[in-house]
Amino acid sequence: MNAPESKDTFKVVGTRPIRPDGVEKVTGKAIFGPDYKASNMLFGAIVRSPHPHARVRGIDTKKAEAVAGVHACVTGADFPTLEDTIIRMGESAGSTTDMSQNVMAQGTVFYDGHAVAAVAATSQEAADEAAALIEVDYEVLPHVIDINDAFKQDAPVIHKDQRQTGLGEGEKAGPNVSTKFVMANGEMAKALEGAAATVSEHYSLLPVHQGYIEPHACVATWKADGKIDIWCSSQGAFNIRMLTASFLHLEIGRIRVMPLEIGGGFGGKNSVYIEPVAALLSKKSGRPVRLAMSRSDVFRATGPAPGAEIDVTLGADADGKLVAADVTFKYSAGAFRGTDAMTGVMHAISQYLVPAFSVTGWEVICNMPKHAAYRAPGAPQVNFAVESAMNELADELGLDPLDIRIKNAVAPGMPSMMGTPFGEIGLVECLEAAKVHPHYSAPLGPNQARGVACGTWMNFGGPSTASVSIAEDGSVLVAEGNPDIGGSRASMAMMAAETFGISYDEINVTIADTSSIGFSMMTGGSRTTFATGKAVVEAAQAVIEILCERAAKMLEVDVGDVEWMDGEAVSKSAGKRLTLKEIAVKSGATGGPISFEKGVNPLDHLPGYGVHICDTEVDPETGHVTVTRYTAVQDVGRAIHPAYVEGQLQGGAVQGIGWALNEAYIYNKDGTLDNAGFLDYRMPVASDMPMIDTVMIEKPNPAHPYGVKGVGEVSIVPPLAAVGAAVGNAIGKPMRDLPISPDRVYSAMNGKG
Amino acid sequence: MNAPESKDTFKVVGTRPIRPDGVEKVTGKAIFGPDYKASNMLFGAIVRSPHPHARVRGIDTKKAEAVAGVHACVTGADFPTLEDTIIRMGESAGSTTDMSQNVMAQGTVFYDGHAVAAVAATSQEAADEAAALIEVDYEVLPHVIDINDAFKQDAPVIHKDQRQTGLGEGEKAGPNVSTKFVMANGEMAKALEGAAATVSEHYSLLPVHQGYIEPHACVATWKADGKIDIWCSSQGAFNIRMLTASFLHLEIGRIRVMPLEIGGGFGGKNSVYIEPVAALLSKKSGRPVRLAMSRSDVFRATGPAPGAEIDVTLGADADGKLVAADVTFKYSAGAFRGTDAMTGVMHAISQYLVPAFSVTGWEVICNMPKHAAYRAPGAPQVNFAVESAMNELADELGLDPLDIRIKNAVAPGMPSMMGTPFGEIGLVECLEAAKVHPHYSAPLGPNQARGVACGTWMNFGGPSTASVSIAEDGSVLVAEGNPDIGGSRASMAMMAAETFGISYDEINVTIADTSSIGFSMMTGGSRTTFATGKAVVEAAQAVIEILCERAAKMLEVDVGDVEWMDGEAVSKSAGKRLTLKEIAVKSGATGGPISFEKGVNPLDHLPGYGVHICDTEVDPETGHVTVTRYTAVQDVGRAIHPAYVEGQLQGGAVQGIGWALNEAYIYNKDGTLDNAGFLDYRMPVASDMPMIDTVMIEKPNPAHPYGVKGVGEVSIVPPLAAVGAAVGNAIGKPMRDLPISPDRVYSAMNGKG
Repeated sequence: MNAPESKDTFKVVGTRPIRPDGVEKVTGKAIFGPDYKASNMLFGAIVRSPHPHARVRGIDTKKAEAVAGVHACVTGADFPTLEDTIIRMGESAGSTTDMSQNVMAQGTVFYDGHAVAAVAATSQEAADEAAALIEVDYEVLPHVIDINDAFKQDAPVIHKDQRQTGLGEGEKAGPNVSTKFVMANGEMAKALEGAAATVSEHYSLLPVHQGYIEPHACVATWKADGKIDIWCSSQGAFNIRMLTASFLHLEIGRIRVMPLEIGGGFGGKNSVYIEPVAALLSKKSGRPVRLAMSRSDVFRATGPAPGAEIDVTLGADADGKLVAADVTFKYSAGAFRGTDAMTGVMHAISQYLVPAFSVTGWEVICNMPKHAAYRAPGAPQVNFAVESAMNELADELGLDPLDIRIKNAVAPGMPSMMGTPFGEIGLVECLEAAKVHPHYSAPLGPNQARGVACGTWMNFGGPSTASVSIAEDGSVLVAEGNPDIGGSRASMAMMAAETFGISYDEINVTIADTSSIGFSMMTGGSRTTFATGKAVVEAAQAVIEILCERAAKMLEVDVGDVEWMDGEAVSKSAGKRLTLKEIAVKSGATGGPISFEKGVNPLDHLPGYGVHICDTEVDPETGHVTVTRYTAVQDVGRAIHPAYVEGQLQGGAVQGIGWALNEAYIYNKDGTLDNAGFLDYRMPVASDMPMIDTVMIEKPNPAHPYGVKGVGEVSIVPPLAAVGAAVGNAIGKPMRDLPISPDRVYSAMNGKG
Repeated sequence: MNAPESKDTFKVVGTRPIRPDGVEKVTGKAIFGPDYKASNMLFGAIVRSPHPHARVRGIDTKKAEAVAGVHACVTGADFPTLEDTIIRMGESAGSTTDMSQNVMAQGTVFYDGHAVAAVAATSQEAADEAAALIEVDYEVLPHVIDINDAFKQDAPVIHKDQRQTGLGEGEKAGPNVSTKFVMANGEMAKALEGAAATVSEHYSLLPVHQGYIEPHACVATWKADGKIDIWCSSQGAFNIRMLTASFLHLEIGRIRVMPLEIGGGFGGKNSVYIEPVAALLSKKSGRPVRLAMSRSDVFRATGPAPGAEIDVTLGADADGKLVAADVTFKYSAGAFRGTDAMTGVMHAISQYLVPAFSVTGWEVICNMPKHAAYRAPGAPQVNFAVESAMNELADELGLDPLDIRIKNAVAPGMPSMMGTPFGEIGLVECLEAAKVHPHYSAPLGPNQARGVACGTWMNFGGPSTASVSIAEDGSVLVAEGNPDIGGSRASMAMMAAETFGISYDEINVTIADTSSIGFSMMTGGSRTTFATGKAVVEAAQAVIEILCERAAKMLEVDVGDVEWMDGEAVSKSAGKRLTLKEIAVKSGATGGPISFEKGVNPLDHLPGYGVHICDTEVDPETGHVTVTRYTAVQDVGRAIHPAYVEGQLQGGAVQGIGWALNEAYIYNKDGTLDNAGFLDYRMPVASDMPMIDTVMIEKPNPAHPYGVKGVGEVSIVPPLAAVGAAVGNAIGKPMRDLPISPDRVYSAMNGKG
């Protein structure tokens, strides 16, 4: 085994080789979701509701079916009914019926863009023409989109008998409340009473979209034996398999999902929107069916991140040590329940040690598309509020905003919000690194100011499977089940190369389909390099054991006498060595093909922490904000491929800046989305951004063979408050509502709003 | 473990469920080689030599490159040179340089249809137009096709410095002899001297083609990272991977082959013809390239089975016990060396115990396409001669042809030609079953007669890998690396179901690509149900062990207390049981995803034996022969899926009958193939055939968990002599030359030729 504990001994880990999929992707040759074509396939189109809330009185597909080339139409009636699902799934039917209805309305549409019918035809033109001829008879119902309105007792009822969890005994909540989630400790009132300084403010954010470049697209074929093949991009082919099976009431093993390259997901490609529809169209037509979303479909009918209304009260002693934190927020969920309120609560104040805390998260159903995960789901919203309040508290106490954070930061051994002690986390190191970073003391120009914030994401481990096999010539093949989003082919190859003691170029990594390898959870939660990496390393170690056994046979020595060193089996006593290639070419004679498949389920992941420093310049005439300098500091455990870790820090920061300054879902009074396109939904582009400087703090995770911690999500958390503080400092007014659009800044500067 | 030793206890093995791929295949929906299309792909065309032997003085591709839509041309010059290959491969370069030249001529064309150049364009029309414009300057050389002519000392020289193996010290052979292979034992002259009866005759056969319905086709894409993806049908994706890597001087791990459905192979789809060409066209064009052969290409440029000239002398005592067998044959090889002379020698008399034998096989190079394996490669030709001579010997001794075979048949414990004792083989049982079969004593009509023959194939084991994984809901997924030719998805599912103790429908089998599973040898040699089946069973057993461990955790009992019974983990002492599904849904909590990949390399396979009875009716006016009744008896070890075993017996018999009666490669005096199409190359169709009756003798192989012996190849061996004997008996003249075409029969009946 090669698993050196000191970084200095690594030969591959920590280097920056070129990713195998890189050139194909940047030259447009890689096959992403919308690129895949199957022989003899039909083209599908989905009919979407123009109303935010309506009863579907009837759907007439006759005219559509008469269009030349049309082979099949499906509606909600083609899906297993909600009742069937409830009978089949029992207690756990809730989220399945929700998600299934989200894929295709069953009697009621709940948001502008909700799918109501679909058609498949021999050309996209015919499908589009037929879709336009499907007549849906809607009875429009009252709708509600604003969180505060939806939360009210007398709000329009979205789901009769909304399932409500977390309410206290006898507690009543409005008809659209789906979840109340609370974590609390200590005596709040007493703690606040004794505080030397308090801040108590309200913050708000609007829903934003992940904005992945690649729209959802798939090809599905329902075969004569009742099995389904699906080609699509996603964050987890196994997730697509499980959800599609669930919605269609099939055994999971009947579905095979072939992962295509993914053009961005950020949490939004864990859900299923079109695959079951394409499968049903294929079942009816007997041919493979392609469905692809337009950009407008993506905005209208896939999940944005929750908008939020947040109240924060912080209390500190004279030294700036927090004594109390009281946080209450409402998150929107869209038309069906989600989980962000829970993760929001878990991340609200988890970066600080606070003796008395109370965090209450409400989730509120509204007439928007069902929300989806977006990078560190649930964390950025509440973090924006808490970190903005921390900055206001520092101001009130006359403390440096990094100093007040250092005083309160969680560190190894301290109890988490759950009471369990923290492991080898690195928040303090990040804060200290930020403090001494040249950026933090750099002079500022006119209309410029600086803000800081820190943030955290719990990271995740969970189930992953990888296999390693040795070809006849000694080539090493690694197969894994996680789509390569951020360079995981490269990082898996690097970890395998390090383990084998061979070069990066000698490892060939494949993302296998769901029928060719054991289960892996999705690429998300910052889990892949940690958990799947662990599976790769352990599979490689098992293969090394086999190689040593084979070498012992070949060398006619005891297996205990054989050690693996730098890609070779070495028998010191016999003074002999065999290369991997030499063992491979004789594998037939020594016992057959060499491979090993390993499933792991590590849960000893560690949370990640980041500290961001942001400089902005405000145009006093227009309120337009320019980010002039930005530095992201993060504890990354150990960077397997530093360039891709830096990329994660930069990408998250840019998305957070977009959320802070520009992005928002804007609905009109009719409840339809006004900005369902990149022209009107303003995401930052390269020319909007300065170079995002990164500082990687490497405090290895002892639970991973190479010290990996998750790195993908932390970086979207701090920017919201860091940008807010920078702008607030520039104009002398705290910015408590996102996005910090020019009109809001102008109004604030000029004493309005 | 469920591995019952008595057939009566099987629940799945021996039943006849529907194969999962069946309906897709018969309704034309399955994706075979020619059906696959890649996004953005180019279409290729290959330029083929119109001469059987010529020096290529030059190739001018200018006009072709000027055709609109043409993106790339390749010639032999684009392949690694023969010298490079020799330098790289050393001793083992021979077959690689041969096969590489067979794919694309390098300076000399060796047969009509030999590839000399290729072109890729945006449409098939443009590619074909451009191919026609490629100008090749040939210097025509003398050619030789007939085996006897090619064998001569003064024959036209095909390869200067032909590599010749097996010649005795100082022995000279003609310039086109590539191999002499000899097996001998005992004192031939003395044995023949003491024989009570002898037969000494000459026999001949012409080359025949496997005649698979699906022509070779592939799509290859050479990616920017130097890796190649190939989609094609074949008998072994790993074979395609290895050969393509070898011809292009690449590491094996750089190539990923995705197996498509295969429309027949019969040995002919182990070779590589177009994949490296498509890969090079893709490398030059930067786009995926499709190449597909026409039927004419298949006949002209892929490998038929060897033609043969065979001398047989048999001697027996008065009881009919063989005392001597002297066999000498020449097999054609086509333009490059093969291995059929060796397997011919090995199978010449291996069904009989002969005290003195001498078998000499010569392989002769000639100006035909390089020959390829065809079902029991090398065996049918020499078997035709030896079995025909056995029938003549029986006639001479006045013995029943089955009785003489029973007297001489090999049986368990007897020495093989190699001297090692036979295991549980079943030839005697087959002969005895044939003797009592109603067919053998059925009355014959006018112009009808009966013939019998027996035959053998050694079968094979060798390396295979399979993996078994359990989905979140308990679905069982089996992945293996062998293309499904004869129903192996079904048979693998059945063996897995039997092992798990669950139903056939609960197992989902996938043929994985070469990067997603460990190495498996090709589907061929009658090895798949035996060796890959063993891998599937052992992987399933390993998964059952894991399931028992997980169940022990869940039940809080010792793992030793848990037994697997009928799909459930049972703790007798605790009186508790858990289903596979119950264990699967908790797998996250008990250790993570469950899967196991197993590589095996079993070499304890057993040869198979068959006895065929054939009735024919000869039209006295035309010499046309009709097969009126046919019965194939075979020791099948144990039939996992009896219907597919019967199909193998029937299919082989029909191919053997075609070889006997109709099929032959016919070259004209210019050395070009006159019958390169199914109109002129006459294969039997369903309406030509009677129902082929089958008798399966089940004598289990103790080395396989369910007793499997190979069954796919034996059945093509006996028909040649059985048909020959039937016709010979009908007309009273032995038929010693194939095919037994109407003109030959007519001539024999009328005392000519």
